[in-house]
Amino acid sequence: MKRYEGNGRMSKAVVHNGILYLCGQTGTPGNSMQEQTQEVLEKIEGLLNQYGSDKRHIISAVIYIEHASMFAEMNKAWDTWVEPGYEPVRACLEASVNDKRKLVEIVVTAALIEK
Amino acid sequence: MKRYEGNGRMSKAVVHNGILYLCGQTGTPGNSMQEQTQEVLEKIEGLLNQYGSDKRHIISAVIYIEHASMFAEMNKAWDTWVEPGYEPVRACLEASVNDKRKLVEIVVTAALIEK
Amino acid sequence: MKRYEGNGRMSKAVVHNGILYLCGQTGTPGNSMQEQTQEVLEKIEGLLNQYGSDKRHIISAVIYIEHASMFAEMNKAWDTWVEPGYEPVRACLEASVNDKRKLVEIVVTAALIEK
Repeated sequence: MKRYEGNGRMSKAVVHNGILYLCGQTGTPGNSMQEQTQEVLEKIEGLLNQYGSDKRHIISAVIYIEHASMFAEMNKAWDTWVEPGYEPVRACLEASVNDKRKLVEIVVTAALIEK
Repeated sequence: MKRYEGNGRMSKAVVHNGILYLCGQTGTPGNSMQEQTQEVLEKIEGLLNQYGSDKRHIISAVIYIEHASMFAEMNKAWDTWVEPGYEPVRACLEASVNDKRKLVEIVVTAALIEK
Repeated sequence: MKRYEGNGRMSKAVVHNGILYLCGQTGTPGNSMQEQTQEVLEKIEGLLNQYGSDKRHIISAVIYIEHASMFAEMNKAWDTWVEPGYEPVRACLEASVNDKRKLVEIVVTAALIEK
């Protein structure tokens, strides 16, 4: 097992048995849902690339949004980002992050790229 | 990795390294909690059978319900469905789906049946 | 696959392919957030030890808290418990358990200790 960027509370990424687990990612308070989702997905893509996977290897995503009414706006950013043919399984729920101005949190697992 | 029934946003199922991951399943708005839970569990059972697993191979379930007060009603359907001796680990939380008339969403992972 | 402490509804733990999955753990209604988090983490540690893992092998944790305002208090117990160098990936959301006096529920997966 490898752990990356631990801060005493959590690791930003953990690799075990061919799977990369990422910490829940959030965006910048004050930005719109679409902007925050874009930020989150860019962070996720960066972490996937850094630790041996990429967006084509995503297995699953759980998306927590502040208000169910923001579902369509979140999906605008999501649908642009995800590659057809490489969609993960997904669940999306209404649940607040600790700071309610953080409108979205996304938790992803991905397969490592086999060499 | 195999992905099934992708729609540009998500796959309905992903298989990786001996595990089947299913998309969060929901029921029909307007139906009761017990009815919706039954529908969800039937959908899940269908997907498990279709993609190489079955209800005896479920590993974990996360259940999101619209109101905590509906916990007992959800469990009526759940307890009837799950087979003694083959219970998954489980967590149940109060969290809304995007359409609040969808009273329950269930996310399941299962082991593939070894041949 | 091995299942432990099934009660007809769920198993307390499931082992599959080198990973230990635990049932969501909760504390005692009436106790403070910090106390309940401590209880939950003690339960988790006990289950990890019992079924072939330990707190140094945790992969991921999802933490559901009753009120986002209790985030800091939950973290007091969490930060004391987690061992630096062995932090899991983590997500923390505001979502109620079925009994709202249960202030926190934590779901953990861990790697089995290799022999």
